[in-house]
Amino acid sequence: MSITLYWGSGSPFSWRVLLALEHKGLSYESRLLQFDKQEHQSPQMLKLNPRGRLPVLKDGDYVVFESVAILYYLDVKYPGRPIFGGNPEEAGVIMRVICEFQAYAEPAVAKIVEGVFSDQVAPRIDELTDAMHVVAREARTIEGRLSKEQWIVGADYSATDMVIFPWIQLLRRALARAAAAELGARFLPMERNYPALVRWIARIESLPGYQRTVPPHWRET
Amino acid sequence: MSITLYWGSGSPFSWRVLLALEHKGLSYESRLLQFDKQEHQSPQMLKLNPRGRLPVLKDGDYVVFESVAILYYLDVKYPGRPIFGGNPEEAGVIMRVICEFQAYAEPAVAKIVEGVFSDQVAPRIDELTDAMHVVAREARTIEGRLSKEQWIVGADYSATDMVIFPWIQLLRRALARAAAAELGARFLPMERNYPALVRWIARIESLPGYQRTVPPHWRET
Repeated sequence: MSITLYWGSGSPFSWRVLLALEHKGLSYESRLLQFDKQEHQSPQMLKLNPRGRLPVLKDGDYVVFESVAILYYLDVKYPGRPIFGGNPEEAGVIMRVICEFQAYAEPAVAKIVEGVFSDQVAPRIDELTDAMHVVAREARTIEGRLSKEQWIVGADYSATDMVIFPWIQLLRRALARAAAAELGARFLPMERNYPALVRWIARIESLPGYQRTVPPHWRET
Repeated sequence: MSITLYWGSGSPFSWRVLLALEHKGLSYESRLLQFDKQEHQSPQMLKLNPRGRLPVLKDGDYVVFESVAILYYLDVKYPGRPIFGGNPEEAGVIMRVICEFQAYAEPAVAKIVEGVFSDQVAPRIDELTDAMHVVAREARTIEGRLSKEQWIVGADYSATDMVIFPWIQLLRRALARAAAAELGARFLPMERNYPALVRWIARIESLPGYQRTVPPHWRET
């Protein structure tokens, strides 16, 4: 089978899949699409995913999208270096923490990232401050997990880490903007407030293949 | 191992797990908690799930929550009558359609159900009408799938059916209220607009053990 990944630079959903492909050591054709040229909405891409969203993974003739579903497909198809756990109990916790992140943290992180990058901090400060409180509380829980273990669930790098990590990187990048100074005041510096999270970020950044997963446009700025 | 399920009547998340337990023919102790007595927020329950939400499943000493994670745990632990597919390709589609439902349909369905049951249809009619458009579009996609197959993904009853079904039942119950007449006008009657969905509902309602999954307070009214 030959794997092709269609993805977009800076999309946390795409980044998850790149992390999984690199972790599993799978070879893949990387098709970086340009959001600003609407390449993800081309007729060819809409045939693969009618919602016109990225990432989309093609494996031979098989097509799958939605990042968590792609991670899951890859893990069932290529079970070496598993990312959904080595036993039922671990599998349950990995999926549980993914579900919790999606339900309770992701909407707030996405709101902050989107608010900062669209220069809407001042007009939306109340709403974004509320979101920041949610994020800080959820980050505190993850910090607690990481202060006991190397990875968010147990002793191994898993789909949970891959799902959460790109959003943390986007959040850091957003909060580093001057306009976000007030918003980030209670969250930053992460080194002081979330030391275990910072060590976890460094651990992922030093994984083999990590550099290939970094959003290309981040390297240019 | 002995399974205990803590659940709440009318919670679509709880209903999913009951459907899975019945489908797999697992014996379980059913612990129906009363939301109006805050039993899901008791110290004992908060020890099991600090978020104080239902359902929570206990299997021996192991505890798991978040409905999709419970379904996944049960499937890995008790692989008979699988609900996450029989091969990687099916597994990917099952998880993909679950992710799509959660991302694109669930917030809108939840808004409608919550709006109707809290008697807020008139004051929130614009917002709920928008949500209804989203639900109608997503239901159209599912109708398309069900007009070709017996189940939402492929030839077998799967986690996807279990995730979506309770929300459809809640939606029908909400739209049957007199106050929701205008809101439901373009969606109903389902027999005409979504005939395959109606046949699918009947198919699930006739499964062995289904009656044990129906919210008890629905039987009384």
